[in-house]
Amino acid sequence: MALSSGWLVACASGQGRIDMAVPGMATGAGVGAAVACAAVVALLSAVLALYGPPLDAVLERAFSLNKARSIKDMKNTFQLVRNIIPPLTTKKHKGQDGRIGIVGGCQEYTGAPYFAAISALKVGADLSHVFCTQEAAPVIKSYSPELIVHPVLDSPDAVQDVEKWLPRLHALVVGPGLGRDDGLLRNVKGILEASKARDVPVVIDADGLWLIAEQPALIQGYQKAVLTPNHAEFRRLSEAVLRDPLDSSDPHGAVLRLSQALGNVTVVRKGERDVISDGRQVLECSQEGSSRRCGGQGDLLSGSLGVLVHWALLAGPEKTDGFSPLLVAAFGACSLTRQCSHQAFQKHGRSTTTTDMVAEVGPAFARLFES
Amino acid sequence: MALSSGWLVACASGQGRIDMAVPGMATGAGVGAAVACAAVVALLSAVLALYGPPLDAVLERAFSLNKARSIKDMKNTFQLVRNIIPPLTTKKHKGQDGRIGIVGGCQEYTGAPYFAAISALKVGADLSHVFCTQEAAPVIKSYSPELIVHPVLDSPDAVQDVEKWLPRLHALVVGPGLGRDDGLLRNVKGILEASKARDVPVVIDADGLWLIAEQPALIQGYQKAVLTPNHAEFRRLSEAVLRDPLDSSDPHGAVLRLSQALGNVTVVRKGERDVISDGRQVLECSQEGSSRRCGGQGDLLSGSLGVLVHWALLAGPEKTDGFSPLLVAAFGACSLTRQCSHQAFQKHGRSTTTTDMVAEVGPAFARLFES
Repeated sequence: MALSSGWLVACASGQGRIDMAVPGMATGAGVGAAVACAAVVALLSAVLALYGPPLDAVLERAFSLNKARSIKDMKNTFQLVRNIIPPLTTKKHKGQDGRIGIVGGCQEYTGAPYFAAISALKVGADLSHVFCTQEAAPVIKSYSPELIVHPVLDSPDAVQDVEKWLPRLHALVVGPGLGRDDGLLRNVKGILEASKARDVPVVIDADGLWLIAEQPALIQGYQKAVLTPNHAEFRRLSEAVLRDPLDSSDPHGAVLRLSQALGNVTVVRKGERDVISDGRQVLECSQEGSSRRCGGQGDLLSGSLGVLVHWALLAGPEKTDGFSPLLVAAFGACSLTRQCSHQAFQKHGRSTTTTDMVAEVGPAFARLFES
Repeated sequence: MALSSGWLVACASGQGRIDMAVPGMATGAGVGAAVACAAVVALLSAVLALYGPPLDAVLERAFSLNKARSIKDMKNTFQLVRNIIPPLTTKKHKGQDGRIGIVGGCQEYTGAPYFAAISALKVGADLSHVFCTQEAAPVIKSYSPELIVHPVLDSPDAVQDVEKWLPRLHALVVGPGLGRDDGLLRNVKGILEASKARDVPVVIDADGLWLIAEQPALIQGYQKAVLTPNHAEFRRLSEAVLRDPLDSSDPHGAVLRLSQALGNVTVVRKGERDVISDGRQVLECSQEGSSRRCGGQGDLLSGSLGVLVHWALLAGPEKTDGFSPLLVAAFGACSLTRQCSHQAFQKHGRSTTTTDMVAEVGPAFARLFES
């Protein structure tokens, strides 16, 4: 088996940078295009599944060699995101371009679900729902007449109340402004189980990830899930799932490993560079953002990702050149969030807040994906 | 002992003006730079502590002579503020540039804590929390999705509810929109005691100062406290603490005296010129503001100051050339507030309100401290 070494494909352009790391491939293999990796990876995954060599050893080899081959042109990667964006036509009906649900909003947090829901709309979803607590609902409603806000999350019937909407939703974003109340987390557990049962894609962020760190089985093997941890959330998740202290020397390997341990759930580790993996490939997004770290940017990402996940799954792998659609969706949402942050910072500098970034979603999207 | 006279260093430039008054120094001493004052003051403070001449007599001599030496260049003072501003880098995580808490917001007052909290964000904090009453919370939340608002201040568990957040906060601003309800003030007393116990810096304004005038012991000797009284609040505080009618002929001495009597708590007396003292030095800020006196400007000041106090303490006295970091933070917040007022007034004239001034925080900050 050709598992004695590995390679890393790094693509860069003026617009940003993407790295694709493929574990377990022979060094110097004459594979020219990233696309071809997918087939090899699929084959190797099958072989791995059969023969099961120690995963850590494979990964260590794959990444420690750190052979990088630069592909100058990142246009192709942005093209994959462009490929999944549904055309705007006059033939469509309301809802066809996306009905997204956000699960979150509690006593303290009302801004986060708003940022996620409004970002989904501004990316291009037709309808944005928020499922929050009774108390949070009027406040979230007051932020924008665009949102449909359901005050159900702390109700004894929360799971059924959300479940009855699931057939009408294309994706669920779980976590923005959720908090850590035990009762709420119990309800969210039920909602996640119902979503999986109905095959609804889920993006999990913030205290949704707290729940996953407590009960990884909730999401284990669900390949329509994307987790979007920041620095602290990634550490918590990683240590909970892998039962090892996080190795900070190998950011790509750490994300790949977590995704694999979760059964190929897509993981987006947000940071100075965002690292994305579906347990097979690793993408890195270093689209220029800004140095502002105000609260709410993660909600812009998760809300955008809700829409892009739906679009990517609808488009299917033939539109993403063999890459996992969720990987491409995640790359699109990361690039977009960073571009919004960049544009807002150009205008507002240190005083930039997430509201300024949300105002850039339209222009940033057009610039990255429609030019 | 050279206590028979005193002098006053006044610095002015096109941008504004700063005076530094050092009590007890020999007239005509050949000290060129303001910075050198600090060491002399420290020495004299020690001598004063040993020999203890009547403080009032010293101050009277120090200020009544009113010898002023003009230093044309105020750039150095603004430079001290610039020195404490953390660089924006892509290496940081959310929260590192400041997590600020505002304690206030009650039945009548909801705008004040909003102005303070949003100003903190626009100065550059990453997260702004508000701890207010149950009734005020949904309203404050509705002003902005950027804020995290906790409806806990009138709860029987208010002190514990706020205390559990203290380890995650870099500074607390106590008073905006607080009101004078006895129950609330009792809770705020507990919150102040908990903050002191955890060494959390506090800025106290508005009815937080009413509480301090009633119970000065609450803040006595806590050198991470800054009080920001306006004219009426200063009179009340001063008379409560010094048990003397306020001597309005000597504004610098009055502020110095109050700070000393409180054990070197930093005092910012807002007025036509803002006078700031830590009981050792007196700074005066006469950055051009406006003649509008609409409500809310003090909240812009206290919220900005919350962030700057955190940054200044983080930077430490080596970055403030021997000046107390809180003195520099206060000078920065006063200059910024006045510059916001000035810029807003240029655009809106007599109709200017605090919302117009908050909109100027970014450009004013950049102009004063980042150009």
